[in-house]
Amino acid sequence: MPSLITLLSDFGAVDPFVGIMKGVIKSIHPAADIVDITHGIEPQNVAVAAMTWQTAVPYFPPGTIHVGVVDPGVGTSRLHIAVQAGDAFFVCPDNGLLTLIARDRPISKIVSIETPAFRLARTSRTFHGRDIFAPAAAHLAAGVDIDALGPRVEDIVRLTPTEPAIRRDFIIAHIVNFDTFGNAYSDLTESRFVEWGAAKFDLTVNGTTINHLVEAYGDVERGRPLAIFGSHGRLEIAVRNGNARTSLNLSVGDEIRFDRID
Amino acid sequence: MPSLITLLSDFGAVDPFVGIMKGVIKSIHPAADIVDITHGIEPQNVAVAAMTWQTAVPYFPPGTIHVGVVDPGVGTSRLHIAVQAGDAFFVCPDNGLLTLIARDRPISKIVSIETPAFRLARTSRTFHGRDIFAPAAAHLAAGVDIDALGPRVEDIVRLTPTEPAIRRDFIIAHIVNFDTFGNAYSDLTESRFVEWGAAKFDLTVNGTTINHLVEAYGDVERGRPLAIFGSHGRLEIAVRNGNARTSLNLSVGDEIRFDRID
Amino acid sequence: MPSLITLLSDFGAVDPFVGIMKGVIKSIHPAADIVDITHGIEPQNVAVAAMTWQTAVPYFPPGTIHVGVVDPGVGTSRLHIAVQAGDAFFVCPDNGLLTLIARDRPISKIVSIETPAFRLARTSRTFHGRDIFAPAAAHLAAGVDIDALGPRVEDIVRLTPTEPAIRRDFIIAHIVNFDTFGNAYSDLTESRFVEWGAAKFDLTVNGTTINHLVEAYGDVERGRPLAIFGSHGRLEIAVRNGNARTSLNLSVGDEIRFDRID
Repeated sequence: MPSLITLLSDFGAVDPFVGIMKGVIKSIHPAADIVDITHGIEPQNVAVAAMTWQTAVPYFPPGTIHVGVVDPGVGTSRLHIAVQAGDAFFVCPDNGLLTLIARDRPISKIVSIETPAFRLARTSRTFHGRDIFAPAAAHLAAGVDIDALGPRVEDIVRLTPTEPAIRRDFIIAHIVNFDTFGNAYSDLTESRFVEWGAAKFDLTVNGTTINHLVEAYGDVERGRPLAIFGSHGRLEIAVRNGNARTSLNLSVGDEIRFDRID
Repeated sequence: MPSLITLLSDFGAVDPFVGIMKGVIKSIHPAADIVDITHGIEPQNVAVAAMTWQTAVPYFPPGTIHVGVVDPGVGTSRLHIAVQAGDAFFVCPDNGLLTLIARDRPISKIVSIETPAFRLARTSRTFHGRDIFAPAAAHLAAGVDIDALGPRVEDIVRLTPTEPAIRRDFIIAHIVNFDTFGNAYSDLTESRFVEWGAAKFDLTVNGTTINHLVEAYGDVERGRPLAIFGSHGRLEIAVRNGNARTSLNLSVGDEIRFDRID
Repeated sequence: MPSLITLLSDFGAVDPFVGIMKGVIKSIHPAADIVDITHGIEPQNVAVAAMTWQTAVPYFPPGTIHVGVVDPGVGTSRLHIAVQAGDAFFVCPDNGLLTLIARDRPISKIVSIETPAFRLARTSRTFHGRDIFAPAAAHLAAGVDIDALGPRVEDIVRLTPTEPAIRRDFIIAHIVNFDTFGNAYSDLTESRFVEWGAAKFDLTVNGTTINHLVEAYGDVERGRPLAIFGSHGRLEIAVRNGNARTSLNLSVGDEIRFDRID
């Protein structure tokens, strides 16, 4: 029986929204074990939330129920869905949050959360995390079958994320977000770079030459820029013991360019 | 037997104060289940903390023990209290934190936490969250009777929160705080607005006309201001997919004005 | 059998790194009880992390496993260690994080975490919190003997923290960090000050006279500066109901000076 529940949202650390969701879960299923993935997603940035789920979900045990509330369309007609994908469950608005999860693991069931018994009695149009998503996750954790939550849905909404342009002579990747340390994450995965297969190349970001594609931050001197396929499997631009975002003046959308020279 | 403990404070996410309180609780009662409501209350803002408890507490299970540490008077003569109110318990400084809880649920017991056996052996004058409030909550969770914590107290300290001015022809409400998204919360509750009973009205904030009192953010176009009775039951000023605080230049204390036109 | 695990890092509240570590722990030992000490350590500031552990660790139950990931040398040759010290366990990079813990409690065992079975199968060079430290802690919590993690190591790396200069006629202490409220913490402990033994003294910070060495913030008027041996046992400079860092214009390294006048 599944029982671990994770939470991911853009609610931040100031407001009581996350705590309220946990209260709702504990009211329904007191034995629920709840782990926060992060509540620091940039407000309403569904694309970054989708990448964060893709990075984090593989490290949780089978049967985990992942709740995601990054929901610019709260109160509109978008669906509330519960999804079984591989060995895990997902509860979220149907707005693209599952785009990248759906690439990595087969989706076996999608339901629209509509059964009144598995929502709060009074459902607002402003806080579905509390009224719909937290109760659905708690009931799943308590052993309710996913099909009891509502009718089956054919497919999920998908985003069209940015993709790197990959040609024989060059790759143009893009910065998609930053972490707390100022490291820049891109849309280029290690597997696609390996397929490209260049032995020698120039690597530049915003006209700055990055001399080093390395395997550890410590492989360059302090204060020097580097490129690395980081722990999440995506190309990352960093500065050793520094902040790449500010010192290289980087922004989301900036191009990272590889030019083949072999 | 009660066992869920919630924590609310102005300690923020940088210092180890919250972690230390959890260590104290786990040392006394290892099976305690601890949930954070928020630690992002503006430093020493007891009024906002009181509103946050009023919003969050109803979503927790019966028997929950709520600990609140927003305590500008730490080390002075104000009391440390444990309170039974409705089906829940509260542990906090006696400084007004319970003002709004006491409006919503009957207080059945108030004790002053004084029994040395239920505090840490060395009690500082600077960190009562660790030395007094966390131990009291842990002992309550472990099954200690509230009366064992210390002598009964007659009544709690109450704040005088701002109130909207409500007349036949107009309402003047006030902005009392903001959330992470820049939404403004006011002192006007939905029940008082319904009692006022106007079918048509002008609604302005700082001279800006807010055309829409709606039921969901999505009921106006992106970037447009709106008013809504939000998930907490108070009038809220928001901008769809935007930040009302910055784009409407709002501050705490600003007046929200309804003028009857029917 | 130990089972409580604490986490301390400089990962902040935005990225999913902490959540991922918790997923790894729960995958290995689902019954693990995890408490965050803080993830708000200034990036790569090992000295502040060491002080934070010294302040927080004594409040946790015997057998607790403390994981610290402030790791500017990730991917270099520094060791990953698991340490038994007094009644607790520590899992961290061997970079000085344990300097102050080692002053307060005897170290009985140090091992280098090398056994492949107790790491993740694929170990990156960029995120040892996930790949090495979280698994080691989870296995310890599940009952694995510390010696099974890898070979014994002779000693730990130690930092040389700043020390106050203490002479018959004066003390010069230093500001080492600040908390969220703007209180300044120094390198002067209460026990060393008591040994100094002056009955009367002038106390100045950056040329500002601090008239009051007090026992509670409330012992001075609102807005006035004060010095206090705070809840952590170190001399602290504060402003009652204010922010000492900004109002006294303080920085790390600033000197706090006591001049004996008796």
